[in-house]
Amino acid sequence: MTNPQQSILLIGAGGTLGRAVHQALTARGHRVLTVGRTSGELRYDITDPAQITALYEAAGRLDAVVSAAGSVPYKPLAELGPDDWQAAFTGKVLSQIELVRQGIAHVAGRGSFTLITGVLGHEPIVTGAAASLANGAVEAFVRAAAIELAPQRVNAVSPNVFTESLGTYGDFFPGMGSVPLERVAQAYVRSVEGAQTGQIYRL
Amino acid sequence: MTNPQQSILLIGAGGTLGRAVHQALTARGHRVLTVGRTSGELRYDITDPAQITALYEAAGRLDAVVSAAGSVPYKPLAELGPDDWQAAFTGKVLSQIELVRQGIAHVAGRGSFTLITGVLGHEPIVTGAAASLANGAVEAFVRAAAIELAPQRVNAVSPNVFTESLGTYGDFFPGMGSVPLERVAQAYVRSVEGAQTGQIYRL
Repeated sequence: MTNPQQSILLIGAGGTLGRAVHQALTARGHRVLTVGRTSGELRYDITDPAQITALYEAAGRLDAVVSAAGSVPYKPLAELGPDDWQAAFTGKVLSQIELVRQGIAHVAGRGSFTLITGVLGHEPIVTGAAASLANGAVEAFVRAAAIELAPQRVNAVSPNVFTESLGTYGDFFPGMGSVPLERVAQAYVRSVEGAQTGQIYRL
Repeated sequence: MTNPQQSILLIGAGGTLGRAVHQALTARGHRVLTVGRTSGELRYDITDPAQITALYEAAGRLDAVVSAAGSVPYKPLAELGPDDWQAAFTGKVLSQIELVRQGIAHVAGRGSFTLITGVLGHEPIVTGAAASLANGAVEAFVRAAAIELAPQRVNAVSPNVFTESLGTYGDFFPGMGSVPLERVAQAYVRSVEGAQTGQIYRL
């Protein structure tokens, strides 16, 4: 089986996950165009739909778009106010779904989108309600968008806490295990090079 | 087993589902306070967090809050713009989660919240991506909020298209079956009178 080189837009390339995904995709021979708010070849903030428009104009023709970017507030439920819910929606949901919707015209006919969600969508932790909400929204969107995008494809990667991040965040995920970044990055490879759509890869 | 009378705030009381829920809860002997934007004993728009605050001040002490209200736009994926995603978030997600969060202080120590989602969260249809997104968000929120709310409880009811609505909406749900309104209303009774939390009742 051949593994044709793809031109891939990587959002959040400068983060912990983004760097691992970058490494995995380039190791597979793909051309990766890095995007970040403050680092990367292209500097855009995808929480602003207008900047997504500008990003796609700058990026040119693409075979795949992969997102490793999304931020949400963590607070006890009673302290999460309307601004926090909105921040989770803007920072992880609207950003990624507009990346898909606006990307329809810029990605190849059989190209793909890969989004990031996370374990909290199904397995909640205290202070994580806004993260859970965002992940649940993105996963349901992926299932729905898949049936309208075809033959373009869309999947999501839903990782547990990274093994490499246990020192910092481990106490928030007691007994929940962890996943090495390399395994998460391989789920992006699977989404990009495989043929599935509407899938949530849980790791 | 006794069935103590509860004071229940019913949001969206004037709608197709709201009327069925009203009937089922009053048939069980509960005192139901009806809320709607344009009908009901209390007139408030829960898409505005400030009106939720005013609603709770007007309602007094409650044993349960049940929501049968949520509106989202239906359009082909490529036509759903940022304003549409935001409308789905404001109209079905933010509204219901603020109903829970602000309600913590107004609902009895072992009281409950019951929210509405829908089949599209897991089984998408064409033009339904915004609805799917909203339902997925609310369901993930319910799982997450449950672990922080206890001993207060929160569940969601996720119905298929109503049998009584097949004439109007049936063509959007080909071969997906339907559920009689009475069965959906009984899921609200189950959530209110039962002891489960963090559940999604799929019908």
